Amino acid sequence: MSATLAEICAALGGVLHGEPGLSIDRLASLETAEADSLSFVAQARYASQIASTRAGALIVPPALLEPARARGACIETPDAYLYFARLTQWWKARREAAEQADAGPAIHPSALIDPTARLGEGVTVGAFAVIEAGVVVEQGARIGAHCVLERRAQVGARTRLSPRVTLGHDCRIGADGIVHGGVVIGADGFGFALHQGEWIKIEQLGAVRIGDRVEIGANSCIDRGALEDTVLEDGVKLDNLIQIGHNVQVGRNTAMAGCAGVAGSARIGANCTVGGGAVVLGHLTLADGVHISAASVVMRSIHQPGQYSGVFPIDDNRSWEKNAATLRQLHSLRDRIKALEKTS
Amino acid sequence: MSATLAEICAALGGVLHGEPGLSIDRLASLETAEADSLSFVAQARYASQIASTRAGALIVPPALLEPARARGACIETPDAYLYFARLTQWWKARREAAEQADAGPAIHPSALIDPTARLGEGVTVGAFAVIEAGVVVEQGARIGAHCVLERRAQVGARTRLSPRVTLGHDCRIGADGIVHGGVVIGADGFGFALHQGEWIKIEQLGAVRIGDRVEIGANSCIDRGALEDTVLEDGVKLDNLIQIGHNVQVGRNTAMAGCAGVAGSARIGANCTVGGGAVVLGHLTLADGVHISAASVVMRSIHQPGQYSGVFPIDDNRSWEKNAATLRQLHSLRDRIKALEKTS
Amino acid sequence: MSATLAEICAALGGVLHGEPGLSIDRLASLETAEADSLSFVAQARYASQIASTRAGALIVPPALLEPARARGACIETPDAYLYFARLTQWWKARREAAEQADAGPAIHPSALIDPTARLGEGVTVGAFAVIEAGVVVEQGARIGAHCVLERRAQVGARTRLSPRVTLGHDCRIGADGIVHGGVVIGADGFGFALHQGEWIKIEQLGAVRIGDRVEIGANSCIDRGALEDTVLEDGVKLDNLIQIGHNVQVGRNTAMAGCAGVAGSARIGANCTVGGGAVVLGHLTLADGVHISAASVVMRSIHQPGQYSGVFPIDDNRSWEKNAATLRQLHSLRDRIKALEKTS
Repeated sequence: MSATLAEICAALGGVLHGEPGLSIDRLASLETAEADSLSFVAQARYASQIASTRAGALIVPPALLEPARARGACIETPDAYLYFARLTQWWKARREAAEQADAGPAIHPSALIDPTARLGEGVTVGAFAVIEAGVVVEQGARIGAHCVLERRAQVGARTRLSPRVTLGHDCRIGADGIVHGGVVIGADGFGFALHQGEWIKIEQLGAVRIGDRVEIGANSCIDRGALEDTVLEDGVKLDNLIQIGHNVQVGRNTAMAGCAGVAGSARIGANCTVGGGAVVLGHLTLADGVHISAASVVMRSIHQPGQYSGVFPIDDNRSWEKNAATLRQLHSLRDRIKALEKTS
Repeated sequence: MSATLAEICAALGGVLHGEPGLSIDRLASLETAEADSLSFVAQARYASQIASTRAGALIVPPALLEPARARGACIETPDAYLYFARLTQWWKARREAAEQADAGPAIHPSALIDPTARLGEGVTVGAFAVIEAGVVVEQGARIGAHCVLERRAQVGARTRLSPRVTLGHDCRIGADGIVHGGVVIGADGFGFALHQGEWIKIEQLGAVRIGDRVEIGANSCIDRGALEDTVLEDGVKLDNLIQIGHNVQVGRNTAMAGCAGVAGSARIGANCTVGGGAVVLGHLTLADGVHISAASVVMRSIHQPGQYSGVFPIDDNRSWEKNAATLRQLHSLRDRIKALEKTS
Repeated sequence: MSATLAEICAALGGVLHGEPGLSIDRLASLETAEADSLSFVAQARYASQIASTRAGALIVPPALLEPARARGACIETPDAYLYFARLTQWWKARREAAEQADAGPAIHPSALIDPTARLGEGVTVGAFAVIEAGVVVEQGARIGAHCVLERRAQVGARTRLSPRVTLGHDCRIGADGIVHGGVVIGADGFGFALHQGEWIKIEQLGAVRIGDRVEIGANSCIDRGALEDTVLEDGVKLDNLIQIGHNVQVGRNTAMAGCAGVAGSARIGANCTVGGGAVVLGHLTLADGVHISAASVVMRSIHQPGQYSGVFPIDDNRSWEKNAATLRQLHSLRDRIKALEKTS
């Protein structure tokens, strides 16, 4: 696939400086770009790489126009990173359009679709997908091979399910979402009553309700609620291997990195970020705009926006061993300091 | 679906106070309950919510009967939470029975079942399931769509496998179990001999042996043993995204929350709990009744029952940075305290 | 299955001491071995168990020959653990050969294989597998049931994909690899540009490139690169539930234990090990020969080989609470020590 700078600017805007007919075969980082590549410099701190990159053309903000122009073609735009994001979308859509021509039938004949399911216009369904009774798939949605949509599940318009996704009965995902392979939406929440040493199952009677523009990474799990629904609001972005427990609520535009876990009934605000491997314990509340650093463990509610961290600093093993051993006596060390203060 | 209080008490017991014909459409928490809802109050500390809930009826222990009775209908029972758990089971079974009437054939015609496999009475098999040679599925078990039961795998009576579960060759799960979507039972344990810088694979010749009444959450993994079997005893409950390494033994009624990991050859006792994201290192032993807090790392065997924790406390990022930096000098701080003590 | 000691030595070498016709039915650990079992003692520290094991025969290094010989048959070999590893491979291959006789057709008739896909000699494809246009599967590779190989994916010779693996479009795995169930290779990396509080998706235009002799554990995820490829070099071994972010590079023969996570653009050297549940943050570099302890969090690049750790030591809950509370004042404790030092 290739495109000229003129075609790119016609589609995405920006001010073109240099040869409009320059052909771009590849989007690339500054380090790996070649003469056929379009790259971007979003921040002034990367300005020093402008002179050395071999990219055929650069996307730059006005502040970096001069050095970029000095070395060759460029596209000037207020937010170069945003322009680059939209360029990747345009590039991918174009590549996929070229491939669609020779794609198979929209509804693969091996898919099993219950006659009571309703599929909107332009829906595609992959091989061996199973769509049960009462399911609704809105227009333009794409259901990958081997997906299972249990009874009464709903998929919003243009949402794409990669191969091997389970959307449990009565669960709903809104429009313009992306769900990656292996995701399980609507498994039972983890709820038991302890009775004479045995765990008595609390059946999970709620569902999962997911808003629009939500992305869920591969092999992540969103459990159904016990009584009410588990909720992911519009614009939530989850990376891979994330666990969302039952009854959790995640606010609008909150993003979580890989391997994060949120225990049951936690309420996470809007515009939060949760770093990779971080854990939020159950029944806690996080205000809007709370940012949890990677691998940190939230053990109490957080009511003020800000960045929060809690990670044991890594060290060479020998130093760590000494400090960790001393840490187990820290409280008594404090008492010894107090005693010294009294006598000093 | 709906049921009267009289029907509920006929099925589950309890002393009914109030209108027997009151119709319940929904089980709900105290906060979200409406006039059509049945809710419960298990503990005295929630007693203050009795007056304010809009629930049509409440399940309460004798100690809370008076205030509950003062506001309307209620079911009196010694353990309200246990009663509620059983009610969810009854409710779900009733709902499913209503749906079963229009379910498809018990053995979906697209499933591939080896002629040497033995399926007990009342077994159901979903679409595109693969059941290999020598598999045994006992009466009333339910095998979801897209499950793969490899050769000689065994599934006990009434156990349910959700769609997209793999039960590896020679692995066995007992009766009355529940396995959620995406679970992989019987992948190879992680075993290698290091030889001149290369990892030489140790083939994993054991299997996985799982007892009765075991529940396994979505996308969890239970590896097969190297020589002997990995074992989960009766009543074990595992949440989602849990890793159980090869040769691990988990004792009766032990429960683990999401994202926990147990490394190879660890032996965990009965009636333990392992919190979400906690890690148990390999070859360790945990006694019966050991409780590991969420996100804690078990680095040595624990021989006494009790609660154990080890998590860096979360803090605002600035405070954390200062304390974490100082932590790397903690051992030398101790030496400085010692020196001060000598001179004081 | 059974084999005589003579057959084993003929296949794998070693010096046989004792009855060549002794029949072995099982490989076993020293503790569980019986008269029909072959076991091994690799290290002198297990020498005390030689007298007590009931194993029919032992694999031992020269240093342990005398006590082993004193109790019965044995195979003498310079590296007993390596010999044992190779024995497990030989044992499994033999067992599988016996089973292959009654296996089904090499290409299951239910598999969907695009006519433009190229399958090498001896390739097997399981039930309901989906192989899209332009895929290449080299000779002797085994594609499990329910696998999805998207367009132009490539699988090297003799590589085995367990049931339910996704190999995304344009991704490649080399020869002699093993991929366990539920693995997703080539989901989108987690990349967004933040624009007025909304996350704008950066489409991931790279792929995943995996070398030879790579093993990937169940339900692990390897994301495709944003612009260039995510790379796992030859001999990498990943356990279950591991997350590898976009653009990550993992060097030759590096091994990671279960639940580890590597964030985007990290570069991990060759011959490293990453312990279970450990986290490597994004854009960091780890030199060759770096070993990260389980559950440790790498927050800065590491340029020297060695063992690195960072875990809060577990303790009884009461002690942990005290020490954790004091830890939040650690920086001020240091100041108090300083003050004491000035006045002393």
